[in-house]
Amino acid sequence: MNYENLTLHTDKYQLNMMYAHWIQGTHNNKAVFEIFFRKLPFGNGYAVFAGLERIVHYIQNLKFDEAEIAYLQSQEENYAEAFLKELRSFQFTGQLDSVKEGTLVFPGEPLIRVEARLFEAHLLETAMLNFMNYQTLIATKASRIKQVAPHDTLLEFGTRRAQEADAAVWGARAAYISGFHATSNMRAGMLFGIPAKGTHAHAWVQSHDTEEEAFRRYAEALPDGVTLLVDTYDTLKSGVPAAIKIARMLREQSKELSAIRLDSGDLAYLSKQSRQMLDDAGFPEVKIVASNDLDENIMLNLKAEGARIDVWGVGTQLITAADQPALGGVYKLVAREKDGAYEPVIKISGNPEKISNPGAKDVYRLINTETGKAEADYITLTGEEPPATGKPIRLIDPLHSYRQKQIDNYEAVPLLEPIFKQGELVYALPSLEQIRRYHEQQKKLFWPEYLRKLNPEVYRVHLSDEAWDLKKRLVRAHQD
Amino acid sequence: MNYENLTLHTDKYQLNMMYAHWIQGTHNNKAVFEIFFRKLPFGNGYAVFAGLERIVHYIQNLKFDEAEIAYLQSQEENYAEAFLKELRSFQFTGQLDSVKEGTLVFPGEPLIRVEARLFEAHLLETAMLNFMNYQTLIATKASRIKQVAPHDTLLEFGTRRAQEADAAVWGARAAYISGFHATSNMRAGMLFGIPAKGTHAHAWVQSHDTEEEAFRRYAEALPDGVTLLVDTYDTLKSGVPAAIKIARMLREQSKELSAIRLDSGDLAYLSKQSRQMLDDAGFPEVKIVASNDLDENIMLNLKAEGARIDVWGVGTQLITAADQPALGGVYKLVAREKDGAYEPVIKISGNPEKISNPGAKDVYRLINTETGKAEADYITLTGEEPPATGKPIRLIDPLHSYRQKQIDNYEAVPLLEPIFKQGELVYALPSLEQIRRYHEQQKKLFWPEYLRKLNPEVYRVHLSDEAWDLKKRLVRAHQD
Repeated sequence: MNYENLTLHTDKYQLNMMYAHWIQGTHNNKAVFEIFFRKLPFGNGYAVFAGLERIVHYIQNLKFDEAEIAYLQSQEENYAEAFLKELRSFQFTGQLDSVKEGTLVFPGEPLIRVEARLFEAHLLETAMLNFMNYQTLIATKASRIKQVAPHDTLLEFGTRRAQEADAAVWGARAAYISGFHATSNMRAGMLFGIPAKGTHAHAWVQSHDTEEEAFRRYAEALPDGVTLLVDTYDTLKSGVPAAIKIARMLREQSKELSAIRLDSGDLAYLSKQSRQMLDDAGFPEVKIVASNDLDENIMLNLKAEGARIDVWGVGTQLITAADQPALGGVYKLVAREKDGAYEPVIKISGNPEKISNPGAKDVYRLINTETGKAEADYITLTGEEPPATGKPIRLIDPLHSYRQKQIDNYEAVPLLEPIFKQGELVYALPSLEQIRRYHEQQKKLFWPEYLRKLNPEVYRVHLSDEAWDLKKRLVRAHQD
Repeated sequence: MNYENLTLHTDKYQLNMMYAHWIQGTHNNKAVFEIFFRKLPFGNGYAVFAGLERIVHYIQNLKFDEAEIAYLQSQEENYAEAFLKELRSFQFTGQLDSVKEGTLVFPGEPLIRVEARLFEAHLLETAMLNFMNYQTLIATKASRIKQVAPHDTLLEFGTRRAQEADAAVWGARAAYISGFHATSNMRAGMLFGIPAKGTHAHAWVQSHDTEEEAFRRYAEALPDGVTLLVDTYDTLKSGVPAAIKIARMLREQSKELSAIRLDSGDLAYLSKQSRQMLDDAGFPEVKIVASNDLDENIMLNLKAEGARIDVWGVGTQLITAADQPALGGVYKLVAREKDGAYEPVIKISGNPEKISNPGAKDVYRLINTETGKAEADYITLTGEEPPATGKPIRLIDPLHSYRQKQIDNYEAVPLLEPIFKQGELVYALPSLEQIRRYHEQQKKLFWPEYLRKLNPEVYRVHLSDEAWDLKKRLVRAHQD
């Protein structure tokens, strides 16, 4: 097994296109590809871009080792030895620009732009989409959950229901970017420095003669500040009373019970009753943790019902993005080298929303200088003069071109940053804490109407006049 | 980064329970845990058990290396050095019994049984559930897809939408167990020996001046038997006619076009029209591949509409099990060592279906010796006399005990096989091809009524009299 090498984590057709280009002598022709998505998940008003760090490490570690070459030799395509020799020295020599992790992003705008030899650009597609799609999806789901409990503590608890091991750790990372506070997964904690948190399982209680004995022995063994799971037998009759006894015991030792945890039953009722019992016993500081198939809708309803929950453990619904478990990000050719120059390329479709925006592009966030809030995103062709303060911009709705508006006082913040140039990493990867803080600031750029969970206002992404003209010209050319 | 070591791929509370047992001196007490699920996914009549090989390798490779120990030393729990020393020499010394991969399995029956020191049994839970839940989920989803196209070629195409890299490869493996024929993921091909298949992307066509030129150059470069993607511009006006030209060119060279691929639009209409065009041009042997967000329901409808599709590329819906992206498998304590003997343990719940079946258990499949078909599954306590031919069995419905029936002529096939004994692997892991064939045979044991996709008959899992009496006794004891 050569498990850690991700070089062949790609669709076979990428290898076959690389081979065909190599056979035909076109493999050194350059091309520009862009990653974008067409539709926001969960009916949300934005997505939270994530996955770049994983992509950077993937690109840096691309290497066709002996195991990969031997596997390719076994394939029915009977790849020429000289091609395999070319692969042995494969490395990324192109340019990659990307939006920063934690940025709020929107449909139709380029999130990652790759300019490279066709030979290289094809290989990267599958893995980049796999990483970006998943982390962006989970960061977006986590952000929705954060919206309904902005001041509570949020724990990612999903590993046992995650779609295999990578999903567990990269999902925990994505959730942390969007404001979760900790994960139960220790490997995610170790790999990324996310705080790891945990209580105990029902099995701990079941492996003792009584619930009270189980609680006492757990509290004795661990440092100050344990959380006790109170629903193994009967939450209100047995679990909470036993936890209160332990809280008294701990207080006598100048220690304290940190929290109780509810993991089943009617969380609204049980949390209110438990709160009352804890308060009546003189323990208003003991917090209540709740878990059990929670998502942002259940949490909103529990809060509306007056549930007294301080800490939320969110598992399955977050880590699988259960209500929409895939983001449909795509990687599309937008320009190709022909006779030494780039020629823009379009993908036509019977569905107007699926016609691609041709040409290599940049994207800017236009910040209103009076309000400090984002007005719209603005896509230009890479050759174009960038938008600049003092130069009014006419914004054309990309789907309905009769809808236009002009804005005057703005700052144009480029969203794409150079990551690789001529194959060299030129970007200082920020720490996860920096990404998390950057994301928090990003959200402040948007009016709450764009951020709300249900029926958010649509934030607009506009094409420049040049980008728009190019698209119209290429659509007409294909209709002739 | 210590990425490949999965020892800390566990929830923190497992470590804390291990620590608490160690502090209290109870860590060497033995216990029995069982993995089962309560509800079948997708409204299906069965699940396809998968994930065992991954679990075996995980257990064999458990090792607290320096990186793991250093991470644990950084935790707020301030674990004692002697505990960390104990972890350094950690290995699995227990017994593990499991259902074989590819077996059809049902709610409430033990799929994996672990008998080990509490210290070991806790650590394993999270990762085992993570692996088993995902592979079983995807194998079951793939099996549903196989039901609607039993004689067609099925390709797993999901990597770019999979929930990260592990999901892509282990999902491809799970799909192959249930009868898929190939995957697009080359790493899955390399790791597991699954055939890898691929065509070309729209970008191949877009990087040439005309579709016909793109097709010709692709067919020239690759060995005989290519598939051409015909929907980049206009499937029927441009794509299929160009593909037919290439088919003629290849025929003149004594080669042949293997297939065309449709990836958008009305697949029923386009496949019928394309079939007609290919037939009219004298190419009835050229197959039609279809892809584009397919699942078992869309495929059934396409077939009902007379679509002429020979090969199905199934992506997102399969690899994420989009209509139910998590299987709720759990790992529950069923017996614990006390004073040198095992004592059965129950988990009570307000919901009768969530009350666990106490005691360490075995499970048998009762095969009617006249029909050769499975009658029911039968759970016994491990100490009990196993069911034997010639000894009539009274079957008691586990939820509705007044429902009983007796069966006489049966063979009782034990479903749990020993995998580890005293920490040693005693099971010869079958090849993936063997698992796939075993699964195919397994399906033949069941009447089609249990296997159908919509509203299947409920296959029964029964408790023995002894297992049933034990459960009633423990429930009563907790009610007192």
